[in-house]
Amino acid sequence: MKKIAVIIDDMFEDSEYTEPASAFTKVGHKLTHVGLKKGKTVKGKKEGTKVTIDEATGETSVDDFDALLIPGVYYPDKLRSHDEAVKFVKDFVANGKPVFSICHGPQLLITADALRNRKVTGWKSIVQDIKNAGAIFIDVEVVEDDNLVSSRNPHDLPVFIQRSLKKVN
Amino acid sequence: MKKIAVIIDDMFEDSEYTEPASAFTKVGHKLTHVGLKKGKTVKGKKEGTKVTIDEATGETSVDDFDALLIPGVYYPDKLRSHDEAVKFVKDFVANGKPVFSICHGPQLLITADALRNRKVTGWKSIVQDIKNAGAIFIDVEVVEDDNLVSSRNPHDLPVFIQRSLKKVN
Repeated sequence: MKKIAVIIDDMFEDSEYTEPASAFTKVGHKLTHVGLKKGKTVKGKKEGTKVTIDEATGETSVDDFDALLIPGVYYPDKLRSHDEAVKFVKDFVANGKPVFSICHGPQLLITADALRNRKVTGWKSIVQDIKNAGAIFIDVEVVEDDNLVSSRNPHDLPVFIQRSLKKVN
Repeated sequence: MKKIAVIIDDMFEDSEYTEPASAFTKVGHKLTHVGLKKGKTVKGKKEGTKVTIDEATGETSVDDFDALLIPGVYYPDKLRSHDEAVKFVKDFVANGKPVFSICHGPQLLITADALRNRKVTGWKSIVQDIKNAGAIFIDVEVVEDDNLVSSRNPHDLPVFIQRSLKKVN
């Protein structure tokens, strides 16, 4: 059993949370939802999936977890303007712990300045931001660079989940 | 009377469109709403303000206009993955025509590679992207660099509108 943090807020892409979450818990890993305020309920953009924040970013630490999942769509844009959320993400990369990023997930990694010289993929709208951040953008369904696993969109979920699971097995 | 293009799609920040639009039309300027599909009605994120697209990005040209308004929040993230929308914005900058950008507006300018060595401001979440794009980010209510006028958020609207109006008078 591994402890996996999911950084999340309103307007996450439902399937990019629900499908990895289901796959992780099915094999016995424990998920902790980390966000701006403990106890707050946040909702997915398309289907309104409800998630309750278990821990606030400023009150928990990378030391409490084995890996980090960053689902996509619009919430990374919000969280990247909160220093504690950015630090939480940055610490996972700095500690070499597995980070699973999909869709707009790289936005948090860019603000954390954690993509320099890293191979990564992400949603097409942020390709220029990824390149400008010093990363090597690759337009394929999944990219692995050491412990950073990244994918582009919900269509990539099966292989994204498969590769992410391998990192925590 | 000047002809001002407004590039827009669903999930624009209502006030960042309605307030400049009102100020421009009040003094006699003509607005043309440019988007992905002529005739489509798009809606603001907070208040559901409805706007009908007058011209499609691929079927109109910078030559038809005197200036460009880029309101903010989430639609620039969508439009920046459409080549014709990016080209439309890029052409305004390349032609030295006035561009008024607020909030997430710089996202379109980044994908257009139009911010290198330019002074600009924008919404706090995209500060790192603006810097990584080679721009000089300044955290003030309005920044003018030649014909590029930029602001950060709806609170900056009064001065943003005042400076933008001056550029087309």
